[in-house]
Amino acid sequence: MIIPSIEPTQDSALSAALDAAINNKTKPPGSLGILEDVAKQVGLIQKTTQPRVTQPSILVFAGDHGIVAENISAYPQSVTWQMVENFLAQGAAINVFARQHKCALHVIDAGVNHDFGTRPGLIDRKVGSGTRNFAQKPAMTAGECAAAMQHGMALVASLDGNVIGFGEMGIGNTTAAAAIMHKATGIPVADCVGAGTGLSVDGIRRKQGVIEQAVAHHATVIAPLDILSTFGGFEIAMMAGAMLKAAEQRMVLLIDGFIVTSALLLASRLQPAILDYCVFSHCSDENGHRQMLNFLDARPLLQLGLRLGEGTGCALALPLLQAAVNFLCEMATFESAQVSEKAG
Amino acid sequence: MIIPSIEPTQDSALSAALDAAINNKTKPPGSLGILEDVAKQVGLIQKTTQPRVTQPSILVFAGDHGIVAENISAYPQSVTWQMVENFLAQGAAINVFARQHKCALHVIDAGVNHDFGTRPGLIDRKVGSGTRNFAQKPAMTAGECAAAMQHGMALVASLDGNVIGFGEMGIGNTTAAAAIMHKATGIPVADCVGAGTGLSVDGIRRKQGVIEQAVAHHATVIAPLDILSTFGGFEIAMMAGAMLKAAEQRMVLLIDGFIVTSALLLASRLQPAILDYCVFSHCSDENGHRQMLNFLDARPLLQLGLRLGEGTGCALALPLLQAAVNFLCEMATFESAQVSEKAG
Repeated sequence: MIIPSIEPTQDSALSAALDAAINNKTKPPGSLGILEDVAKQVGLIQKTTQPRVTQPSILVFAGDHGIVAENISAYPQSVTWQMVENFLAQGAAINVFARQHKCALHVIDAGVNHDFGTRPGLIDRKVGSGTRNFAQKPAMTAGECAAAMQHGMALVASLDGNVIGFGEMGIGNTTAAAAIMHKATGIPVADCVGAGTGLSVDGIRRKQGVIEQAVAHHATVIAPLDILSTFGGFEIAMMAGAMLKAAEQRMVLLIDGFIVTSALLLASRLQPAILDYCVFSHCSDENGHRQMLNFLDARPLLQLGLRLGEGTGCALALPLLQAAVNFLCEMATFESAQVSEKAG
Repeated sequence: MIIPSIEPTQDSALSAALDAAINNKTKPPGSLGILEDVAKQVGLIQKTTQPRVTQPSILVFAGDHGIVAENISAYPQSVTWQMVENFLAQGAAINVFARQHKCALHVIDAGVNHDFGTRPGLIDRKVGSGTRNFAQKPAMTAGECAAAMQHGMALVASLDGNVIGFGEMGIGNTTAAAAIMHKATGIPVADCVGAGTGLSVDGIRRKQGVIEQAVAHHATVIAPLDILSTFGGFEIAMMAGAMLKAAEQRMVLLIDGFIVTSALLLASRLQPAILDYCVFSHCSDENGHRQMLNFLDARPLLQLGLRLGEGTGCALALPLLQAAVNFLCEMATFESAQVSEKAG
């Protein structure tokens, strides 16, 4: 497998031009806060002082996890395929929010433990019917993991837009993501584990124990791709591949919550420059996400106490991304509007 | 002047019905965070489990302030009318964001120190050509203040929609708002004063001194309407009147930043139930806004480091308000989608 090559967006001349363009808009310097940083970032990604959001899409990757055998989720595994059906029927939160913002939504079966047959609206990239239980053996083989990543790359290569949001569905995948977070950052498991879809305190304690035993069992796993295949899921690996390809294509990557960020953690170990292309849509309420974001030096746009996944944070943050490029492209300058500038 | 009467939205039967409707949606309970609270609030305001946002509008009130004679702003007073011209020419940040979200924008001359003549798109409710310098005498007479409030009430009464965002423009109005904040909350002036459009540390210190002397000078002023007329502005008083009327009409009030919240502080002293109708769009970077929000027990939707005013926070938060009612009206339930519920 060839990992996509990603160019840092750094460009000192363009950076200065963007600063000047942003500061000449009819507003006190800095008064649009984080949106000014996002406008500049997207300008650097698109190599222009007039960046635009075109044909944004959200990809929701679904997969099942063998680790559910350890009783680490508040919901049964069948909810994964049932929620995929809900996506196809337009009934889930991500359908509502994507529709609201006229954002294309693509649902991908990366490895759900269910036979959907051929279904309009469902992109079949099933690598397997759920991963293995990583408490006992690696979740994926290296080959399965690579296949998932390559599917992700190919999917992104087929998209036309310049902004891509990443979402996921998979009962058990906060357990996988917490294990990845621990292995990729060194942060203690206790700080990586959360309630997921709604575990009790006892449930969280059990989940923590399962992860601690599993990481001890796989103690020699260190390289990013080995962490991904050992603890990840088909949907996490497919996202990691899709993210790397999207950054190679100089798209804006909208990052959702805990699980999506865990995929990015590993992708950024493979290609650190990928972070230049990431807009962090929100800080979720899943314990560990804040520390994950801090580890990546990421400043999220939203903090709404979301913990739903599906790419819902991406969909909700999309208007802010659009607002950032819109003010840069559409606001008057002090000169054009004949507004007096700040004294002194 | 008759202060509008405002009914608390409290309704225990409807409240229970809204909780049930929200928790039956296909998502873990609570997983849409603050949006769930907003959905419930709007349901209570509109007396329905199927709330909707219809014909939202943002009203931007502009006014000038005599206190600018004390050299408390980074920009000259002429920027108030120049920015009004910029609003009319569609060149300001609020124009861009309102356009992006298809939100009607109304610009009101509440008391700008400039003769605009008759201008298409500008609503002329000029009470005076700027207030008096409150370092020396009350900014408004009681009659001027009441006239401004009544204009605000009448403006809102003429609107069709059910959501109204409040914005403002007025060089010097963070000084007025800081004085109001101090008088209305008892929080020390030092914690109420900020950089406004961009004062230096020395400038902030001077602004603080001006306010401290002025509040000492007007030490006997205590009643909310007296605080408003003494320290406020035509745009602040007009907003306060508009807010009271909007809540009487059971509209959703989208609250912007520091100055808009100062108007609400006083309106809520007159009619505490107004707070049931307020959605706080953001916490701004203006020093004091966070404490103002805490005083009102308000949880803002956005924290983007904005400090621009104009209603920009309202415009940026509008999609989140829409997302809140949309998920409640459009998402499938566990039953309708045949998704398994949480175990235990």
